[in-house]
Amino acid sequence: MHPTRVHDLDFAQLDVGREQRQGLPEVVYGPGKTPAQIRAITAQLLQHNAGPVLVSRVDAETAADVLDDVPGGSYDVTAGLLVWRPAAPNGFALTVVSAGTSDGPVAQEAAAVARAVGLSVTTVNDVGVAGLQRVLRVQEQLRDSDAVVVVAGMEGALASVVGGLVGCPVIAVPVSTGYGASLAGVTALLAMHASCAAGITVVNIDSGFGAAMAAHRLAWARSRRT
Amino acid sequence: MHPTRVHDLDFAQLDVGREQRQGLPEVVYGPGKTPAQIRAITAQLLQHNAGPVLVSRVDAETAADVLDDVPGGSYDVTAGLLVWRPAAPNGFALTVVSAGTSDGPVAQEAAAVARAVGLSVTTVNDVGVAGLQRVLRVQEQLRDSDAVVVVAGMEGALASVVGGLVGCPVIAVPVSTGYGASLAGVTALLAMHASCAAGITVVNIDSGFGAAMAAHRLAWARSRRT
Amino acid sequence: MHPTRVHDLDFAQLDVGREQRQGLPEVVYGPGKTPAQIRAITAQLLQHNAGPVLVSRVDAETAADVLDDVPGGSYDVTAGLLVWRPAAPNGFALTVVSAGTSDGPVAQEAAAVARAVGLSVTTVNDVGVAGLQRVLRVQEQLRDSDAVVVVAGMEGALASVVGGLVGCPVIAVPVSTGYGASLAGVTALLAMHASCAAGITVVNIDSGFGAAMAAHRLAWARSRRT
Amino acid sequence: MHPTRVHDLDFAQLDVGREQRQGLPEVVYGPGKTPAQIRAITAQLLQHNAGPVLVSRVDAETAADVLDDVPGGSYDVTAGLLVWRPAAPNGFALTVVSAGTSDGPVAQEAAAVARAVGLSVTTVNDVGVAGLQRVLRVQEQLRDSDAVVVVAGMEGALASVVGGLVGCPVIAVPVSTGYGASLAGVTALLAMHASCAAGITVVNIDSGFGAAMAAHRLAWARSRRT
Amino acid sequence: MHPTRVHDLDFAQLDVGREQRQGLPEVVYGPGKTPAQIRAITAQLLQHNAGPVLVSRVDAETAADVLDDVPGGSYDVTAGLLVWRPAAPNGFALTVVSAGTSDGPVAQEAAAVARAVGLSVTTVNDVGVAGLQRVLRVQEQLRDSDAVVVVAGMEGALASVVGGLVGCPVIAVPVSTGYGASLAGVTALLAMHASCAAGITVVNIDSGFGAAMAAHRLAWARSRRT
Amino acid sequence: MHPTRVHDLDFAQLDVGREQRQGLPEVVYGPGKTPAQIRAITAQLLQHNAGPVLVSRVDAETAADVLDDVPGGSYDVTAGLLVWRPAAPNGFALTVVSAGTSDGPVAQEAAAVARAVGLSVTTVNDVGVAGLQRVLRVQEQLRDSDAVVVVAGMEGALASVVGGLVGCPVIAVPVSTGYGASLAGVTALLAMHASCAAGITVVNIDSGFGAAMAAHRLAWARSRRT
Amino acid sequence: MHPTRVHDLDFAQLDVGREQRQGLPEVVYGPGKTPAQIRAITAQLLQHNAGPVLVSRVDAETAADVLDDVPGGSYDVTAGLLVWRPAAPNGFALTVVSAGTSDGPVAQEAAAVARAVGLSVTTVNDVGVAGLQRVLRVQEQLRDSDAVVVVAGMEGALASVVGGLVGCPVIAVPVSTGYGASLAGVTALLAMHASCAAGITVVNIDSGFGAAMAAHRLAWARSRRT
Amino acid sequence: MHPTRVHDLDFAQLDVGREQRQGLPEVVYGPGKTPAQIRAITAQLLQHNAGPVLVSRVDAETAADVLDDVPGGSYDVTAGLLVWRPAAPNGFALTVVSAGTSDGPVAQEAAAVARAVGLSVTTVNDVGVAGLQRVLRVQEQLRDSDAVVVVAGMEGALASVVGGLVGCPVIAVPVSTGYGASLAGVTALLAMHASCAAGITVVNIDSGFGAAMAAHRLAWARSRRT
Repeated sequence: MHPTRVHDLDFAQLDVGREQRQGLPEVVYGPGKTPAQIRAITAQLLQHNAGPVLVSRVDAETAADVLDDVPGGSYDVTAGLLVWRPAAPNGFALTVVSAGTSDGPVAQEAAAVARAVGLSVTTVNDVGVAGLQRVLRVQEQLRDSDAVVVVAGMEGALASVVGGLVGCPVIAVPVSTGYGASLAGVTALLAMHASCAAGITVVNIDSGFGAAMAAHRLAWARSRRT
Repeated sequence: MHPTRVHDLDFAQLDVGREQRQGLPEVVYGPGKTPAQIRAITAQLLQHNAGPVLVSRVDAETAADVLDDVPGGSYDVTAGLLVWRPAAPNGFALTVVSAGTSDGPVAQEAAAVARAVGLSVTTVNDVGVAGLQRVLRVQEQLRDSDAVVVVAGMEGALASVVGGLVGCPVIAVPVSTGYGASLAGVTALLAMHASCAAGITVVNIDSGFGAAMAAHRLAWARSRRT
Repeated sequence: MHPTRVHDLDFAQLDVGREQRQGLPEVVYGPGKTPAQIRAITAQLLQHNAGPVLVSRVDAETAADVLDDVPGGSYDVTAGLLVWRPAAPNGFALTVVSAGTSDGPVAQEAAAVARAVGLSVTTVNDVGVAGLQRVLRVQEQLRDSDAVVVVAGMEGALASVVGGLVGCPVIAVPVSTGYGASLAGVTALLAMHASCAAGITVVNIDSGFGAAMAAHRLAWARSRRT
Repeated sequence: MHPTRVHDLDFAQLDVGREQRQGLPEVVYGPGKTPAQIRAITAQLLQHNAGPVLVSRVDAETAADVLDDVPGGSYDVTAGLLVWRPAAPNGFALTVVSAGTSDGPVAQEAAAVARAVGLSVTTVNDVGVAGLQRVLRVQEQLRDSDAVVVVAGMEGALASVVGGLVGCPVIAVPVSTGYGASLAGVTALLAMHASCAAGITVVNIDSGFGAAMAAHRLAWARSRRT
Repeated sequence: MHPTRVHDLDFAQLDVGREQRQGLPEVVYGPGKTPAQIRAITAQLLQHNAGPVLVSRVDAETAADVLDDVPGGSYDVTAGLLVWRPAAPNGFALTVVSAGTSDGPVAQEAAAVARAVGLSVTTVNDVGVAGLQRVLRVQEQLRDSDAVVVVAGMEGALASVVGGLVGCPVIAVPVSTGYGASLAGVTALLAMHASCAAGITVVNIDSGFGAAMAAHRLAWARSRRT
Repeated sequence: MHPTRVHDLDFAQLDVGREQRQGLPEVVYGPGKTPAQIRAITAQLLQHNAGPVLVSRVDAETAADVLDDVPGGSYDVTAGLLVWRPAAPNGFALTVVSAGTSDGPVAQEAAAVARAVGLSVTTVNDVGVAGLQRVLRVQEQLRDSDAVVVVAGMEGALASVVGGLVGCPVIAVPVSTGYGASLAGVTALLAMHASCAAGITVVNIDSGFGAAMAAHRLAWARSRRT
Repeated sequence: MHPTRVHDLDFAQLDVGREQRQGLPEVVYGPGKTPAQIRAITAQLLQHNAGPVLVSRVDAETAADVLDDVPGGSYDVTAGLLVWRPAAPNGFALTVVSAGTSDGPVAQEAAAVARAVGLSVTTVNDVGVAGLQRVLRVQEQLRDSDAVVVVAGMEGALASVVGGLVGCPVIAVPVSTGYGASLAGVTALLAMHASCAAGITVVNIDSGFGAAMAAHRLAWARSRRT
Repeated sequence: MHPTRVHDLDFAQLDVGREQRQGLPEVVYGPGKTPAQIRAITAQLLQHNAGPVLVSRVDAETAADVLDDVPGGSYDVTAGLLVWRPAAPNGFALTVVSAGTSDGPVAQEAAAVARAVGLSVTTVNDVGVAGLQRVLRVQEQLRDSDAVVVVAGMEGALASVVGGLVGCPVIAVPVSTGYGASLAGVTALLAMHASCAAGITVVNIDSGFGAAMAAHRLAWARSRRT
């Protein structure tokens, strides 16, 4: 197990070898951690790693508290994301499309995380399939992307439509918007898996973060070959 | 309860007043009934009613057996439908669109039942959203319909797309095709309900019959006013 | 794609061609949008469209805020609905029946949206099947309707009963009232789909809006023919 | 634990005290047992008990095999029920109503078991709520019953309607008929629990046996007091 | 439909014939109704009926408000129940047993409603099956009952145990206590239906009211015969 | 990773270090493997390991085929288990209790696997809680066990009752017997997890094998200390 | 039923014989009980039993209230646990491993309860499988344990990995952390049951208490033999 | 919509522009289509397209029938795949790893489809996490891949482990093997989504085809840039 360095904080075992082993930045999941824990973790990651350090789903108050103690970071309030040492742009063209205005925060998380790890991100909002011309008029832009992240709640049909328009990788993010039969995103997740468009992949409900990291894997793998 | 005539066959209580009360033909659900029961029921319905008599989901052998005994009917093998005294065409233009070739039998049931009760049916097959141009090139035909039945399994996204193209009533039929996350049609049913297109209505999984009867209600209600 | 005009607000892509393309009014879904977003959207819709503009599920405070900025609208507090330029009555007779007093708000949304788009709406409340004479004594009124919306939580049995009484279209709305086995409306939704009455259609849980728009499609399609 | 006699057959521990302890006959559940096991169990029950002995859900071949070896019993092929020493009628008037012809076998099991334990059973078939006059015309008969068993698949609405017509105990049996949203009887089970009619009770899906035994408890408890 | 009197309050259609038709008292479900609505309904019920009038699941403030306006009632704070004109005791011996202390409120609702409609109620608390001797030492008391209501959350096993001890009717109430795999009472509901004890019946999750009304049906039906 | 020997069969990577690393015997899951694959795997395991080798869920024909080629094994037809080199008895007293006769095959698998790995197994059949005296009369035997495996389908209540009677480890196995609300064992699994008896553990549905291996872990861990 | 002493508090029936009968301490489940009830129960348990008395899931305020009245106990704020008369260490080596920092509170409950009943507990935090070297570097420690409790939310994969590393008993606790597809712990529960590692057992979601009691059963059963 | 050519076969609308529009080969889903339909579709695709033509999930008999009529193809019996004009290798290194021998057919479908569209595929079988050294000894090979497809049933933990070892894209395929809590692959699907390893993507249950097409999208997008 080649870079197996672990830094022990007692309440947490930091996998400080992941950056070298996998090319993946460390992303700390904020909920359930105290500001003190977040401060301790980020300070250690900044010391033992060289790349970007991110904390996701942090509210403004915690963010301010942490930034006071661990300077040099920035906070994106819509995405709830803290970032230190963002990566330099690597030229990978990612488009994040969302179906409705209520899918905005998840799309924002995807875009912000992706930018922090070096991708070149374009966002296209509110192009749900009930008004098909909205997605059709951006289809060339979608086709020119290296990958497309599709963020959609309700029935998630935008993923199938985009999957049929482009040949590049499509990463679908089901969103927990909608009510009743939406079942808090489970319907969109199942529908995206049952999609008639071939080769679509899916990440967890509301996981803009997961989609961005999946896109990062694409970019990282490509960068090794070229 | 205005026409409340019931004909008692012991194992069944025939609602022979429904035709007069609701303008609805009697449709016998075949599964679970013996040929003898189907023969007895249809003979009585033909005697006590004046309009079409239908038996759905009947296999070829049972159909032949029943037709021997209750002459004058015809059998549609793909739809599994027995029909006596089909209604005269009433000019209501119904289009039945299906997303994939495996949705065929359900679309066929919808079309055959609708024709038997007097609707003018056009069918459009295999226009799933993974190749969007297929549905777009028939959009004018869809817009000219009095109602559209959308038959789709997998993620059922065609219902949302059609719902966004036409202003007339859209009746969506989820189909139990697909595997895994399709959950035998439950995913399509939920997705159609969570659709971002306004005013779509949904019937039971695989119920081409239900969609046709819903369309018949539209035609019947209109015919009363004009 | 005949009227494909899109108005770009950055956070939203307004489908300003829908009214012409589908005869459907624009209905903005309120939850998750800021008052500023609602103001911007409605102002644009009023400018680019000619028909009714609606915002659903808005609380009183947001409504007052928006109306200050975008005058000429009215607010229905029970339905949580904002309406500008309601359509002139088109003579389509819609009856909205509800099973219990707790189904009231959903029935109200259905009725208010339907009136705003020009339907002639009659409401009948609290006629659940546990006291069958309540629905039986209004059956003639139901039969004279052009369509019936049935709003019911718990087991949703009223949809089956009404479906057996009338020949016109029946649009069933499951409601998330009840507790335990009601499963927040999922039981009623499934039960309405499994109904023994032929040709009932169903919309999403609590979607009075969806039922009204489905009824509007009926009225619009009829008006084209006559 | 007052009569605690157990007869040990190694593969089974016969609770031969149940009859005395609870007034309940022994009912052996057939599926999964070999004819030899059924023969051994019934022979012992006949020897150690004085009342009826029943074996449920037995096919014709097994029944013939068992009856050869354990004489004196009779077999009801529709109900799949073997009975020895049926109880004398005790005057408890039970009505078993079913919603559709496909609910027949479950209704039959309920009726046959109930008769074997001494109840006076009347059956009413095919009175589903889509043709309401069918159940309304037998309402006096239902009201005169000591208890009513309602057997219904699909959406199970008949239970709510009967529950609103009669004051006596109503035991609802969901049936696994129907397709799609019927979910093999789960929808009917949930709907019967969510019923708007007060004081309905429910037994397991397809359990005509369970309903009959629940009715037997009613009759037994009453007989102790009078 | 013999006594079909309905009193129209516009927002509610009071089924004032139910008392005479079914022997069932009127029980108003409190949640979702304003104090004004409750006052109007109870006043009318007291005027048009002769028996008990109940309002369930009412908080203390609403109760005080209503009692001010509609005097003569009493309020049980633990059960959340308002009662006017409780019925005279009819001698029907009902035992309400609960498995744990957290099942208390549901057991209380069952007991309070049952007493209000005239049953003689004994309660036995906290006799869950993990300490079997607790239920065994009250088994004679259970056996002497006319019916037993079993209130249990978690896995609901007490229903099976009681069902095996007594011959009288057993009405099981699943409770939404517990966490994780308890699934808010769904597990107990399913387990009670799958019970190995014959003839147990089940009502909705947390429905102490439903159990009491089911017991009332038993008592009412018996009283007609004796 | 101390003993990390892997034997590569191309279609399978045999973990031949498991016996030494964990003290666990190799148990091959039969379904989905060809007789040729089973022969190859068992031959290799017998060569590279020293302890028992088992193949589970094998039908009689496959068993005969394999035993021809890999001699020295024995086949238990009820459990569907092939065993080579069974372990010498280690004195760990395991009792396997089952609730009903249809739980037999799963109980048999548990007992047969446990015996093959050296446990001293006693079986007690058909002691479901509907006849409580059956389990009560064996309670001393249960208390004297080192561990108890409880095998139960339907509602699985026997696990709670046994959990309240004994202080030793209780391993519950839900069984997929029963119908309707049993949901193929899911209800029993959930109910066992929601059990009111403290410290019960649960294994997968129908996994007599899993329960036996869990018991083996208990015996193995104890043997290390004594 | 050998020690069947019950102490009756009216709202609760204390099973004061459990300690003697099963060697299990009394653990009171705090939620839903008033401080007065907790005070009464603990006072009685301390009087009638000799071993540890525990109250789980108590907030700080209630704890302070109870400790004022029932002195001699201590409160663990992270675990939410009240303990009186903790047991002397019995030498049973339990390791509690958790996958992530958000699994902390459940791991804490497991550790605190286990220590209170006499086990020697070591905790290892944050060794999730996404950084496999973290769990691999503690594998010898895990192997030297008498039992391992694995606490994991999300997909629960740590249970399978640990199950493949050690031969001693593994008790898996699914945790309700995570979002979307985690389904509040249900996914982890199901995944742990479907684990490819043989002989893992599972307790209820978030039940650190249940895992500790399962471990106590192991220790108690062993102590009887040695 | 740039290449929007559709070829109309009446029962199917062939999207013959997909190859040019998306770089995706046409893959025909075999189940539910007659040999005649497959012959017609493949003949047209071969004529109108230039790249590979595939038919998935075809049995041997149908394959032989089709190949007779449409020569030049080959059939992979394990994958059930028909291929005409396989693509030339494009140098994209894909590794397909599977957790157990019963995941074989799905892994085979992934590998066969991927090879047919030009990827260089290596397969690694039976490296489930219960014997961790099996996957660890191939970790360098995994790290050198351009992408990894992880095929796993049961609890699907292999996806999390691989996701933590490599930095390249990971496409997880849940498999419907296992029993009980595996829920026909739903548990693995949910667990893979809830995975603690960042940036894993998931395709539908058993969809080796979907995983291969997702990998093809990666290769195609890369080839455009280099």
